[in-house]
Amino acid sequence: MRNKRVNELRTLMKERGISVYIIPTSDYHQSEYISDYFKTRQFITGFTGSAGTAVVTMEEACLWTDGRYYIQAEKELQGCEFKLYKMGMDKVPTVREYIKEYVKKHTDKYKDKFCIGFDGQVLCARDGMDYERLAEENHARIYCDEDLIDRLWDNRPTFPTSQAYILEEKYSGKSTADKLRQVREKMKERKADVHVLSDVCDIAWLLNIRGNDIRHVPVILSCLLMDMEKCCWYVKKENLNEKVLNYLSDNHIEVRDYDLIYQDLQKIKGQKLLADLGRINYKLKSSINTELIDTANPEQLLKAVKNPTEVENIKIAHIKDGVAVTKFMYWLKHTIGRETITEMDAAQCINQLRAEQEHYIDISFDTIAAYGENAAMMHYEADNTCNAILEPKGFLLVDSGGHYLEGSTDITRTFALGELSEEERKMFTAVVRSNLNLAAAKFLYGCTGENLDILAREPLWELGIDYRCGTGHGNGYLLNVHEGPNSFRWRIQETIPRAAVFEEGMITTDEPGVYEEGKYGIRIENELLCKRAIKNEYGQFMEFETITYVPIDLDAINAEEMTLREKNILNEYHQKVYRTISPYLTDNEKEWLKYNTRRI
Amino acid sequence: MRNKRVNELRTLMKERGISVYIIPTSDYHQSEYISDYFKTRQFITGFTGSAGTAVVTMEEACLWTDGRYYIQAEKELQGCEFKLYKMGMDKVPTVREYIKEYVKKHTDKYKDKFCIGFDGQVLCARDGMDYERLAEENHARIYCDEDLIDRLWDNRPTFPTSQAYILEEKYSGKSTADKLRQVREKMKERKADVHVLSDVCDIAWLLNIRGNDIRHVPVILSCLLMDMEKCCWYVKKENLNEKVLNYLSDNHIEVRDYDLIYQDLQKIKGQKLLADLGRINYKLKSSINTELIDTANPEQLLKAVKNPTEVENIKIAHIKDGVAVTKFMYWLKHTIGRETITEMDAAQCINQLRAEQEHYIDISFDTIAAYGENAAMMHYEADNTCNAILEPKGFLLVDSGGHYLEGSTDITRTFALGELSEEERKMFTAVVRSNLNLAAAKFLYGCTGENLDILAREPLWELGIDYRCGTGHGNGYLLNVHEGPNSFRWRIQETIPRAAVFEEGMITTDEPGVYEEGKYGIRIENELLCKRAIKNEYGQFMEFETITYVPIDLDAINAEEMTLREKNILNEYHQKVYRTISPYLTDNEKEWLKYNTRRI
Repeated sequence: MRNKRVNELRTLMKERGISVYIIPTSDYHQSEYISDYFKTRQFITGFTGSAGTAVVTMEEACLWTDGRYYIQAEKELQGCEFKLYKMGMDKVPTVREYIKEYVKKHTDKYKDKFCIGFDGQVLCARDGMDYERLAEENHARIYCDEDLIDRLWDNRPTFPTSQAYILEEKYSGKSTADKLRQVREKMKERKADVHVLSDVCDIAWLLNIRGNDIRHVPVILSCLLMDMEKCCWYVKKENLNEKVLNYLSDNHIEVRDYDLIYQDLQKIKGQKLLADLGRINYKLKSSINTELIDTANPEQLLKAVKNPTEVENIKIAHIKDGVAVTKFMYWLKHTIGRETITEMDAAQCINQLRAEQEHYIDISFDTIAAYGENAAMMHYEADNTCNAILEPKGFLLVDSGGHYLEGSTDITRTFALGELSEEERKMFTAVVRSNLNLAAAKFLYGCTGENLDILAREPLWELGIDYRCGTGHGNGYLLNVHEGPNSFRWRIQETIPRAAVFEEGMITTDEPGVYEEGKYGIRIENELLCKRAIKNEYGQFMEFETITYVPIDLDAINAEEMTLREKNILNEYHQKVYRTISPYLTDNEKEWLKYNTRRI
Repeated sequence: MRNKRVNELRTLMKERGISVYIIPTSDYHQSEYISDYFKTRQFITGFTGSAGTAVVTMEEACLWTDGRYYIQAEKELQGCEFKLYKMGMDKVPTVREYIKEYVKKHTDKYKDKFCIGFDGQVLCARDGMDYERLAEENHARIYCDEDLIDRLWDNRPTFPTSQAYILEEKYSGKSTADKLRQVREKMKERKADVHVLSDVCDIAWLLNIRGNDIRHVPVILSCLLMDMEKCCWYVKKENLNEKVLNYLSDNHIEVRDYDLIYQDLQKIKGQKLLADLGRINYKLKSSINTELIDTANPEQLLKAVKNPTEVENIKIAHIKDGVAVTKFMYWLKHTIGRETITEMDAAQCINQLRAEQEHYIDISFDTIAAYGENAAMMHYEADNTCNAILEPKGFLLVDSGGHYLEGSTDITRTFALGELSEEERKMFTAVVRSNLNLAAAKFLYGCTGENLDILAREPLWELGIDYRCGTGHGNGYLLNVHEGPNSFRWRIQETIPRAAVFEEGMITTDEPGVYEEGKYGIRIENELLCKRAIKNEYGQFMEFETITYVPIDLDAINAEEMTLREKNILNEYHQKVYRTISPYLTDNEKEWLKYNTRRI
């Protein structure tokens, strides 16, 4: 089936003289999660992970994906032509290196007729420009005005047009008028007259509007163009109702048709345009005819630093979420070994417990409930073809979250379902230590996640073990649970924007893990709120407050392997969990929680 | 006296229409340590620290220096016009920002006649270009062909011309021919045809030649120009004897007069020239008339990664050095309270013990022996005007090192001379923990000092304390004890080259400290050799080997504040110190060392 699709694609490529065709995982807005309409890479490769790039030539079909998905991709690519390239591994070429090498190798064959193809509306501007340069250097051309996969894809899902709604100021903490003012100030600082925005989360934040165009990401697919006076929102009419239209009109925001952004952008001349070439597509970039200021969207940092109202709300969201997950843990511990539970049962249970919370909107991503070796796949998701039955031994890893009017959560717990091997216990303890050491960091203002990451990683690196991903990411407010520019990671790469300096009000996940292929997966994820600590002659010290309130499974901890300091941090955390969550529990649950947050 | 000099400088400035004059701390080669001939900034300000920039305008005289020197500079500037700007402190402008602001403020006054002055042979090319741009933007001009301080400086020291000598291959581990080949390979990689080198340590490394032009830095002031065939060394004839001339001739290295570099450089046209604009002076930059490839000197990384012969030698140097410092510690502990010891006595004693070692050449920098509150000045040096008598209480900090044919050392120990306050003991223990935690790091290949620095800093940051400098720096082989590109530091600044990825064979100091103004200073400094550890599916792990062998004063440690892991690291280190050093000690010293390296 997939091999048939690849061959059909090759036929289309031949007809157009395309030598190599690139299918990234993206939508028109460089979104991380994409609606089904845009899942072209999945359509052609069969790989269901959230990140990856497919490249098809006449000879080969290749898929690149990162450390979170190595195991899953290997499994899903079985029986099809696609060859897996593990991004970030020693000696594995990047997509660009592969294509460059391919171009070199085939110069003779294609002479001046080499052609690099991709859908310009989907590829990131910066990547497109890279290929443009590569093409120029090799007398090749670019083919980018057509979505070839669309030609192959019968019954393609429809383009999403969900209902937009307004996020009230008691939740957003800041009016659209104020946000527009803030953005215009930042534009002035960067000497920009105009600003084009295509990042759907940035737009949702700016307009205080949410929707449902992307599964579990409450946004509207749209673009925005603003200068010092005007602000135009390019959006499909179907997304908007009377109330939202009135709200927009009250805020002097002009509504224009979604597709008009390209021609409106082309018309801008003689002005300085602020655009983030890493956050717009290649076609938008190609529509720019005026001086460009290529810099991160100012909205990115503004929305990452949560305002006091947002912080207060988010803490409320985490209490609700903590109640749901704690109740789930109680249920799990009391049901395992008595009734049959599958991974999907577990996911359904936790989703249901979240849905019972006030102001619940949606889960914030597909719940991962992965038993035993399945959890070694960082982003595994059970389905009808693969749905393990939990046994009263080993680990169940549950990574889940909720969207509430008060904000979004992202939490992972790994639960002991019964007997554990010595190795499992040792690794669980190491992961807990990683998590706690990072959470307890005290640091001078100016530090980034690149400075702090090793606090989480060292307990595992000491054992010769690593997790092949960052330690944590920012989290949006009723937006994508993966948000920049704050993060914890150690690799400093020139091609990736630097992690941001931690500011008071930033929220970042802390999620170290151990993933042993074929054996088990362990991850403990809390969210950390960055706060100011003391300021003295040495500068402004900063610290984190853990705002996730769910016990860490003491059944899996070997306390002897923890330092006194680590035990103290854990005990203090557990006391806080008990104080915060117990008021919302039944007497039985409360008693159970008391014991499971005991001092060790 | 100093105010008189400033006013004389202002007279010279007025005569030339100079509005602001910049006096950096440098020589013609952007050396960190400079010979007395070049101490113009010290001449005008009276501040004796090794780093700082003076700026003189008609209204103000200012000095910038960094955290190592805040306390010392405040003291030394007393009674003179110079105002201290503490680099790196909150809201303190940089030199450039200050000048920019000054230019703005005085545009009216000076109209188009504003002029920025400096000695172009001394200012770094990159800084000069910055001022060039600033001048252009403000219709100002640059005055850079004269050294104004020279006009004021009667009895200026003479230009140094020490005897060059050859470092044999049994010490350097690699012939000059091989090094030239390596550099030419790197030039090819960067597509360069020609390469100009002005860094005196890079040149010494490349030619396997040492000298004595800079106090305690065994180099010859010179420049070098090479292409794929030729190599010219621009050096004063007085530096060279017959043996060295023959050696150079054998290696096909042409000797040309020191001052000819500028005109020879001007003649190069139509070729691609590799030059590091951060490591050449502005006059050299202004002499370039051909296409420039501005990149770090390839010599920098090549010389930082010590070859196996160098590593073996350096370990030998550290044994000799450890014997000297351990003997010093024995003497100190047995003499304090019995005889009068001053800071200078202590320095003299340790210098003498080093001088007794085989193949000793020189101390590697002026010994810092700082008692009590004097040690709060990171780079304090006792002299005839300030030379404290040691009392049998508090701390003596000794930061010292030696040059041997087998390499250079840099070590700091802080010794308890008797009774300590609770705070002193607590801080000493925290510094020891900092030092040990960094030394014990296990990390994946790819980490830089920016990733690892927090391992040293966290035990102090937890207490709300910081040291206002990096945690450590590379160390040259019979060269400057401060060497890039490897270092431990946390601030990631765009204006400073990134810390290098740690490679096997790099040697970096690990020297956290606590400096309490008016009270005490504590620093523990060891040198760490980077080595490969296990390689597995997660990548290549790296680790450090501590190659400094001197006890850490157990009299000052509060073992209760250390984790079990930290105690184990210390105990293991002390066992190694005993094994390595005891064979070279007298029986009494040996017995004493046994006790002072006991397990805690």
